[in-house]
Amino acid sequence: MRRLSFLKATVFGATAFGAEPSALPPAMLADGNAVAAYGVPSPFEADVVRRPSGLLSPALTPLGDLTGTITPSGLCFTRNHAGVPQIDPHAHRLLVHGLVRRPLTFTVADLLRFPAVTRTHFLECAGNGAPGWQQLGATVQFSHGLASNCEWTGAALRDVLEEAGANANATWVLAEGADGDLYERSIPLAAALDGALIVYAQNGERLRPEQGYPLRLLLPGLEGSANVKWLRRLHVTDAPAYSRNETASYARLNRDGTRTIFDLTMDVKSVVTTPSAGQRLAGRGAYEIRGLAWSGHGRIAAVDVTLDDGATWQPAALHDPVLPKAFTRFSMPLRFDGSELRVASRARDDAGRVQPTAAEFAALRGLDATYHVNAIQTWRVAADGAVSLGS
Amino acid sequence: MRRLSFLKATVFGATAFGAEPSALPPAMLADGNAVAAYGVPSPFEADVVRRPSGLLSPALTPLGDLTGTITPSGLCFTRNHAGVPQIDPHAHRLLVHGLVRRPLTFTVADLLRFPAVTRTHFLECAGNGAPGWQQLGATVQFSHGLASNCEWTGAALRDVLEEAGANANATWVLAEGADGDLYERSIPLAAALDGALIVYAQNGERLRPEQGYPLRLLLPGLEGSANVKWLRRLHVTDAPAYSRNETASYARLNRDGTRTIFDLTMDVKSVVTTPSAGQRLAGRGAYEIRGLAWSGHGRIAAVDVTLDDGATWQPAALHDPVLPKAFTRFSMPLRFDGSELRVASRARDDAGRVQPTAAEFAALRGLDATYHVNAIQTWRVAADGAVSLGS
Repeated sequence: MRRLSFLKATVFGATAFGAEPSALPPAMLADGNAVAAYGVPSPFEADVVRRPSGLLSPALTPLGDLTGTITPSGLCFTRNHAGVPQIDPHAHRLLVHGLVRRPLTFTVADLLRFPAVTRTHFLECAGNGAPGWQQLGATVQFSHGLASNCEWTGAALRDVLEEAGANANATWVLAEGADGDLYERSIPLAAALDGALIVYAQNGERLRPEQGYPLRLLLPGLEGSANVKWLRRLHVTDAPAYSRNETASYARLNRDGTRTIFDLTMDVKSVVTTPSAGQRLAGRGAYEIRGLAWSGHGRIAAVDVTLDDGATWQPAALHDPVLPKAFTRFSMPLRFDGSELRVASRARDDAGRVQPTAAEFAALRGLDATYHVNAIQTWRVAADGAVSLGS
Repeated sequence: MRRLSFLKATVFGATAFGAEPSALPPAMLADGNAVAAYGVPSPFEADVVRRPSGLLSPALTPLGDLTGTITPSGLCFTRNHAGVPQIDPHAHRLLVHGLVRRPLTFTVADLLRFPAVTRTHFLECAGNGAPGWQQLGATVQFSHGLASNCEWTGAALRDVLEEAGANANATWVLAEGADGDLYERSIPLAAALDGALIVYAQNGERLRPEQGYPLRLLLPGLEGSANVKWLRRLHVTDAPAYSRNETASYARLNRDGTRTIFDLTMDVKSVVTTPSAGQRLAGRGAYEIRGLAWSGHGRIAAVDVTLDDGATWQPAALHDPVLPKAFTRFSMPLRFDGSELRVASRARDDAGRVQPTAAEFAALRGLDATYHVNAIQTWRVAADGAVSLGS
């Protein structure tokens, strides 16, 4: 074990005002509260919530208030098309039919008998980072909060399809959710077999209702909307269905006015969460720049950070574990001396993809792009420590 | 990508009753519910709770209902000595004093400026597995539920002590919590520097009140009660304090009637969570044996599973990631043919420690041992699939 070092200076803002404990606070002179059967956050954290919340609007994750890489289940972003159905798991069924040797109907209990696969993956809405969000709030919650990261547990989609005996000429799977939108999406079978799960649990417990309780698809790295929630049907086919939510919606607008459909993999992306807009540094001294990086193509290979709007870049430390298609936490020490900063991060994944600048992204995709936006995000730290949108 | 196999038999209990979808369930003919700002579990999961809950009683984690390795924050076991204080994080202070060059008082905001360290570790009450618990309920929740596993984030205790300039002759740290018990524990400095954190967040968000909000100690691998919650003071000393909760309580009774104090490291341990007492196999066919293993000494190296009460053992698969001093999930396929089973697991850690049988443990520690109990746990699966305590 490394011995303590005795030579460090005091730089993290602590005050030296006496060696003796203060008088006992009131909480130490009384019994506290009972423990709830199912716990909730402190009332002092009431501001750390999804925003906005409601029936149809997407609800964004407060990334600027969170630590580590796991997103608490109560704060995972959601985007629903007809609200959250309340489903009795005992009555719920999953039908697997179409190009299969034996159509099968599964109960949730049946799926729990398959080998349980647990993996940590991000989910990101295709519309995360679309320009409209920052008009609702100038924080990282609105600029990047349509993304979250959980430990997911379920049966491998491969195992379930093999149980039904999918035919050799099967190339697509239509997934249908049991909500009022009759939501359905076509998934290329190759993508559906690449680590896909029929998920019944997140972060150790059963799925939350707004995450698809009792069953959802989890397609690692693919846009959130393809990860069909409240999953009730998998129709194995040899062609896509061209359903409304893969043509009218979730189709990528290109610069020349055409639309690209079935381009499902989310691009390499990162964002600095501390300091980020709406936060404030408490004065000069030592801090830490922290952020999240992820890629639908694989693992994060490197994240660089700039303090001067991209003139110079330094490598950030990546925190273990660096998992494929999952949030990776990065950090870099920051000594704030009261000079204005323009802070941004740039991620590279193990397939060599690098985040574009805002100008590069606009040149590539146009200024109206609302899907798969992954441009570098800059924050401005003013001389007084206040942090705002950077440019 | 591996191609689908078309030759598998149907063994997981699915029913083949038609290739067409059923009539639309009611949830598909209406809008669902709005999304809450902070989400909660489905009402159909109301039975998955800590038990018992209350002011002073320990509340145990329902391990038999959980998946993966992360314990949801709302379900983490708790053991408090005077209830849960409600602490205003803006008013809370941490004093570091004693054998230090400069006594310092930290706000929570100060500690957030230190390099943030995130690690996944189990916490286990020293009294987990004590014989009394199984009299309250014959499930794995009562036999092993004083243990949980979270992603913790905080400042390294080493960094904080170095900021205060701990003296070279310092060998112990007395940690005091801000609850009505004036709870305090002596921690050997060597243990306190071995990966210890001053934690402000768990599973991505701030600590839950019953886990020590706004600050707690996290001493990887050491008994839960040493991980002082609501941390308000660290007194650096050269001797232990011999406080009530390290002498009258949490002192290990030996066979010869003596007590061992300051033996803080939790032993290697495992338990099968599926099938476990109170559950039921739904008939013959394919299932999966699942369980959790952990050791306060390091990583889990292997878990063996027996179906015949220890006559024969087979190696279980360990699921990635296998992290030090953290829950590791293991599994093994099970084909249930209606013959009675006696299922148990036996873990070995990377230091070579192996779980003892109940008889070996009794010979070593006596029948009245209530702390650091790590004997092998056996479940009986009857011919009709019902699971009960094994012996």
